[in-house]
Amino acid sequence: MTAIRIDGATRLYAIVGDPIVQVKSPELYSELFAAAQMNAVMLPMQILPAHFESTMEALVALGNLDGLLVTVPYKARAVPFAHRLGPTAGRIGALNALRREADGTWTGDMFDGMGFVRAAERKGCVLRGRRVALFGAGGAGSAIGCELAAKEVESLAIIDPQHERATALAGTLAREFPDCRIEAATAVPAGTTMIVNASTVGMRSGDGLPGDIGSLDSAMIVGDVIVSQEPTALIRTAMRHGSPFVIGREMLAGQADALLAFFRRG
Amino acid sequence: MTAIRIDGATRLYAIVGDPIVQVKSPELYSELFAAAQMNAVMLPMQILPAHFESTMEALVALGNLDGLLVTVPYKARAVPFAHRLGPTAGRIGALNALRREADGTWTGDMFDGMGFVRAAERKGCVLRGRRVALFGAGGAGSAIGCELAAKEVESLAIIDPQHERATALAGTLAREFPDCRIEAATAVPAGTTMIVNASTVGMRSGDGLPGDIGSLDSAMIVGDVIVSQEPTALIRTAMRHGSPFVIGREMLAGQADALLAFFRRG
Repeated sequence: MTAIRIDGATRLYAIVGDPIVQVKSPELYSELFAAAQMNAVMLPMQILPAHFESTMEALVALGNLDGLLVTVPYKARAVPFAHRLGPTAGRIGALNALRREADGTWTGDMFDGMGFVRAAERKGCVLRGRRVALFGAGGAGSAIGCELAAKEVESLAIIDPQHERATALAGTLAREFPDCRIEAATAVPAGTTMIVNASTVGMRSGDGLPGDIGSLDSAMIVGDVIVSQEPTALIRTAMRHGSPFVIGREMLAGQADALLAFFRRG
Repeated sequence: MTAIRIDGATRLYAIVGDPIVQVKSPELYSELFAAAQMNAVMLPMQILPAHFESTMEALVALGNLDGLLVTVPYKARAVPFAHRLGPTAGRIGALNALRREADGTWTGDMFDGMGFVRAAERKGCVLRGRRVALFGAGGAGSAIGCELAAKEVESLAIIDPQHERATALAGTLAREFPDCRIEAATAVPAGTTMIVNASTVGMRSGDGLPGDIGSLDSAMIVGDVIVSQEPTALIRTAMRHGSPFVIGREMLAGQADALLAFFRRG
């Protein structure tokens, strides 16, 4: 591992969110930058909700900050800071990465869906034809839903306590992917073969399951975006029933190459 | 040297200034923090003058930023961000350090003068009784003038292209130190035995001397706050004439222990 150095010429990248201690990107990208011989670091920055827009304005105006990652709860609120959006971010109205261009404008895109799908594929999971129940219609859920539909899952049932958010996402994705059966739901449908948690349930240590997940078995794929030291209740349940699973850290690792290339304008 | 690590729990410190690539504090303090087992880093942050106040507001509102260093040209503009000032900062109306207290308020103080004086004393320079010519009545110049007067130099002639700034500083210090002969000047007085550059002359690579410094010899002490790879024109002149000298990096090193204790509320 290449040692991280910081000096006056170090270029800054930051991941903004609230809370922030749980994020793993500062380690991951600071080390990737060092390994790529970039004099750059990825910092955790906790922005409180009342200050999000004013802080983002300050960050994009810094003379030596070149990129941002965006995590919960800001993936949609960050969109207005992009002068242009990549295809996935444009489709779903949420982003998790912003980079400064040579002319000082900012480009945003969303890599969570790609990261999740790559992580599942690296584990040998076949996604095509799956009947998916997706908890959470926020930024990460939108991105994952979009990418799963692009991978030709058979159906996608979107569950969110804010039901209108689930309905809106289902509508957006149904227009883009007419061959996939996409709908908002209030429970995991019978016949589901893949369950993904893209809600924030599991971030807090006492959290349980994101909802009633029915019975699991080894034919069911389970995914969880939560990045945590301990497995979430959902992942523990998957382990107990022998279900293949994808965790948040694998989703992060699955998008690292693409994100590094994005930041390097590669 | 302890390796620098960055993760989600890393606490942030930043040095704000414009330009920023020349600063040495990011390396120095990131390594001191690591050596002190603190999960913390010191970052360079380039704030453009039109954005100073709004950016500072954003930085002090970050949930995981605990301290700031302030360099050119912001040492006076940063004062309103302190809820209370240490004695030196209060005297001169400029600060180079801010720390967040447990209650979320901010305390500011100024360590440049102490750093300069300690660096001179470490080199064996006797300051008492010196007749000093000081170029630059900004934040660093004010701090150094104050600390030299406290060390009982005989006289202090303050030279600044903004003459009213020199006059104001001379008035402030004369009230505090009635036993020292303190005045604004337009040239280095005859009989000067110590010359200090606390102006920004020397920051740019083509810069010459801060003014007409007359003739140097081995009895004259020369000091320069400029932090640079190459010695400044002033320090090169001191070297040629065998004058003992103090450079900007030594001033930084001279205040490091006190600043680390300040940040650790120690």
